[in-house]
Amino acid sequence: MRIRFYNARILTMREEQDIFEGELWTNNDKIIYCDTKDQIEAYYKENPDSMLIFDREIDCKKNLLMPGFKNAHTHSAMTLLRSRADDMPLADWLNKQIFPVEAKLTPEDIYYLTQLAVLEYLDGGITSIFDMYLTPESIADACRDSGMRCVQVGAVNNFSQSPELVEECYNKLNGRDSYNSYILGFHAEYTCSKELLEKIAELAHKYKAPVFTHISETANEVMECKERYNMTPVEFLDSLGMFDFGGGGYHLVHTTENDMDILKKRGMYVVTNPGSNTKLASGIAPINDYLKRGIPVALGTDGPASNNCLNMFREMFLTTGLAKLRENDAACVDAKEVLKMATVNGAHAMGLMNADVLDAGKVADVIMIDLNQPNMQPINNIVKNIVYSGSNANVKLTMIGGVIRYENGEYNIGVSPEELYKKASEIKERINKELQ
Amino acid sequence: MRIRFYNARILTMREEQDIFEGELWTNNDKIIYCDTKDQIEAYYKENPDSMLIFDREIDCKKNLLMPGFKNAHTHSAMTLLRSRADDMPLADWLNKQIFPVEAKLTPEDIYYLTQLAVLEYLDGGITSIFDMYLTPESIADACRDSGMRCVQVGAVNNFSQSPELVEECYNKLNGRDSYNSYILGFHAEYTCSKELLEKIAELAHKYKAPVFTHISETANEVMECKERYNMTPVEFLDSLGMFDFGGGGYHLVHTTENDMDILKKRGMYVVTNPGSNTKLASGIAPINDYLKRGIPVALGTDGPASNNCLNMFREMFLTTGLAKLRENDAACVDAKEVLKMATVNGAHAMGLMNADVLDAGKVADVIMIDLNQPNMQPINNIVKNIVYSGSNANVKLTMIGGVIRYENGEYNIGVSPEELYKKASEIKERINKELQ
Repeated sequence: MRIRFYNARILTMREEQDIFEGELWTNNDKIIYCDTKDQIEAYYKENPDSMLIFDREIDCKKNLLMPGFKNAHTHSAMTLLRSRADDMPLADWLNKQIFPVEAKLTPEDIYYLTQLAVLEYLDGGITSIFDMYLTPESIADACRDSGMRCVQVGAVNNFSQSPELVEECYNKLNGRDSYNSYILGFHAEYTCSKELLEKIAELAHKYKAPVFTHISETANEVMECKERYNMTPVEFLDSLGMFDFGGGGYHLVHTTENDMDILKKRGMYVVTNPGSNTKLASGIAPINDYLKRGIPVALGTDGPASNNCLNMFREMFLTTGLAKLRENDAACVDAKEVLKMATVNGAHAMGLMNADVLDAGKVADVIMIDLNQPNMQPINNIVKNIVYSGSNANVKLTMIGGVIRYENGEYNIGVSPEELYKKASEIKERINKELQ
Repeated sequence: MRIRFYNARILTMREEQDIFEGELWTNNDKIIYCDTKDQIEAYYKENPDSMLIFDREIDCKKNLLMPGFKNAHTHSAMTLLRSRADDMPLADWLNKQIFPVEAKLTPEDIYYLTQLAVLEYLDGGITSIFDMYLTPESIADACRDSGMRCVQVGAVNNFSQSPELVEECYNKLNGRDSYNSYILGFHAEYTCSKELLEKIAELAHKYKAPVFTHISETANEVMECKERYNMTPVEFLDSLGMFDFGGGGYHLVHTTENDMDILKKRGMYVVTNPGSNTKLASGIAPINDYLKRGIPVALGTDGPASNNCLNMFREMFLTTGLAKLRENDAACVDAKEVLKMATVNGAHAMGLMNADVLDAGKVADVIMIDLNQPNMQPINNIVKNIVYSGSNANVKLTMIGGVIRYENGEYNIGVSPEELYKKASEIKERINKELQ
C-alpha cells in the first residue's frame, strides 16, 4: 500500500527544520519520502516509474502534516470511569469509586474499553500510547486489532500484578506484533512493598532495561515515603538501583533539587500530566526546572477517570500555561518546546526511536492538522497556533504504521464506534448491578 | 420560521431541573416549547394543528440541547493578532507587538476580523459575546450581518475612545437591531486619567446603568494603582461612585477581602478569563472566594491574541482546574457551578435576561452537543462530561435567535469562511507592509 500526500505543509520535528511545503510518501508501514516539492520533482526525474504506483493520492490543500502525538501516560480502559466520580477528594475517589469498579473488570471488558479509548486517541491525532493497566494481553490484543501503537508498562503492586507477570509480558509482548511493545514498571512506591520493588530492580538489571512508574504525584505521597524510608520516592527508588538503566516517572510534581539531580544522572524521562494534576489538585510540576537541567519531558493525559478526556491539545496548553503561572513568566516553556514534548520526547521515552519525526525510513505515524479552520486563521505562526489554539476539531487524519485509521470524522479500526459505545454501556450496567 | 427539535436530551439550566428527554420548538426568534415528551404529547392533543406547521424537524438522536455559551469577555477583532507574538513578557507584547498593529486597523478591517471570530464562536457553541474593542459601529454591523448576539462595552481610555463616543454608542446601539446592545465601560484604571473616570461615573449616574472594565488583572496593576491613589483599583473606582448601579470586572485576579466586600455590596459580576491569565502568567483568580460570598462569576476567553483561541470548553476546564489547584481541593468549584457560569451567569452579566436558560418565551439561543463521540462515552454524567471532557468537536449545531448559524461543520452567516480567511490574510499583509 503506497500513499502520496501532496500539496502539504510539513513539520517534520527534525532538529534542523522548520515548516516547508512538500510531499510525504508512504509504502506499507514506512515513510519513503518526506521533503520539499523541489526535491520530490528531482526524485521523480530519477524515478519516473514511481509516479504511477500510488494506491491513493491525497491533496492536503496546504494543511499540515506532522508526527502524531505520543500520549506518554494513560490508563486507557478507565474510559468506563469517565465522569463517574469527580469533584471529590482523591482518597474517596480511589477507594469508594475507582477500586470497587476495577475489581469487577474482566479481560474482555478491558479489551473493549481500551478500543473505546482508541477512538478518542485517533480523533485527537494520538498515534502512540504508553499504557499502564490490568490484563496486559487483552490491552495488547485491543491495540493490535484496532491498529493502535501501544507501549505497555508493568503495573506491579501489592494487590494485583506480580513481577513474574511483568517479566512474562516483557518477554511475550515485545516483538509479538508490530503494534505492541512492553517496558518494565510498577504502579508506585506507595503500592509496593520494599521486597516487591527489589524484585523489579533485579529485573531491570537482568534485562539492562529502563523502568517507569508513578512518582511524587502528590505532596502526601512524598511525605509518607519520607516517613517510611527517610528518603523521597526518587531517592528511595534510586537507592534500590531501580533506574540504573534509565526509565522515568509519571507526574513528578513534588521533587527536590536532589531528586532532579538523580533524574538527570540516570537519564530519566519526566512524563508530565497537567490535566490530571490540575483536576485532582495534585499541584504544578516544575517543568521549567527540568528543562533547565536538560531532563527530557514528555506529556501524557493520564486516564479518563482523572482528566476526563484523552486530549493532547489540552495537555500542551496546560503544560506551558501552568509553567508560565508557576514561574510568573509569560516567556517560559515556549510552544516549540511543548510540541517537541508531545511528539519527539514522548516517542523516545516510550522507546519508539523510529516513530519520533517525519523522515524517510521512519514508521508512518502521521497526522494532518486542518489549518482551514477559524481557530487557525490568519496563519501567523503554525506551531503557536497548534499549542495555544488547537483542538481535536483540527485533526483531519490520523495514520499509524501507514494505515489511515481516522479521516474526516470516520474511523477505520474494524469495529464501529456505536458497537463500542454499546459495549461500554453494557459493561457499566453489569458492574453497577454487581456492586448493588 | 418554526423548527422542531425532537428525540433530544435537554439541559435547560433552569434552577429546578436536571436533564430530561423531550422536545424544543422555536418560532422565529423565540422558544415556544421546551419540555418532556409527555408534556409535548399533551400539548399536541390540545393543539392538533401545530403538528403540521414546522418548517424543519430535527431528530436530535438523543444528543443534548442546552443554552449556548456566553463568552463574557472578548476582543473579537484581535483574531488578526492570534499567534503573532507569544511567549514574551506582557509589556513587550503590548507595546512592541499589539499596539503598533492596532493603530493601523480601519473600521472595515475590524468588521471582517470580528466576523472571523464569529466563525470560531459558532463552531464552539458560543451564542453571545461581551466585546470590547475599537470602532463599535463596525463591530455591531459585523455581528448583525452574521447573526451573532453581541453586547459591546465601552473602552474609554486616554488615547483612543472618549466618554462622548461611549455615550453616543450607548444611545445608538441599544435597540438599533435585535443582535446588538451596549453597556457603559472603560478600558482600565491604568489607561484612564481620574478626570476621564469621573466622567464615566457621571454617565453611570445619568443613565442609572452598570459599568464594566478590566480590573486587577496583574499584581503590577494593583501596585501601581495603590501608588497613585493609595487604594486598590476596586476601592478607587468604587470611591468615584463607578459601580453605584452595578456592573463588573474582567479578570479580577488580584483582589483583597475589602475588594470582595465591595463587589458583593455593589452587586457586581466577576468575569474570569483563566486561559488568558494562564498564558500571560497573570495569576489564578480566587474564584472559590467569590462563590463563597455569593458574587456571581461569568467566563470569558479574552481576545485571541492572549489565549489564543475563543473556546469556552477550555475556559470551563481551567476555571474549575485552577480553582482546585489554588485551594488544594479536588472537590471545589464543581462542574455544575462552572456550567452555570458559562451560560446563565454570562447572560445575566451581559444584561441578556431573556437568553439565559431554555424555556418557552426565551430567545432561541440553543446549541446541540454531540454525545455520540468517544470523549462522551459511556454516559456516566453529562454535565461533568461537558466540563471535564468536552471540546469544540462536540458542538453539532448552534442556533442564535431561532436561526441555525452552524451545523455539522457548515456555517450560515452570509459570507464563507474562505472569504474571511482571505480578508484576514490581506489585512495582515497590508499592515505588515505599513509597519515596515
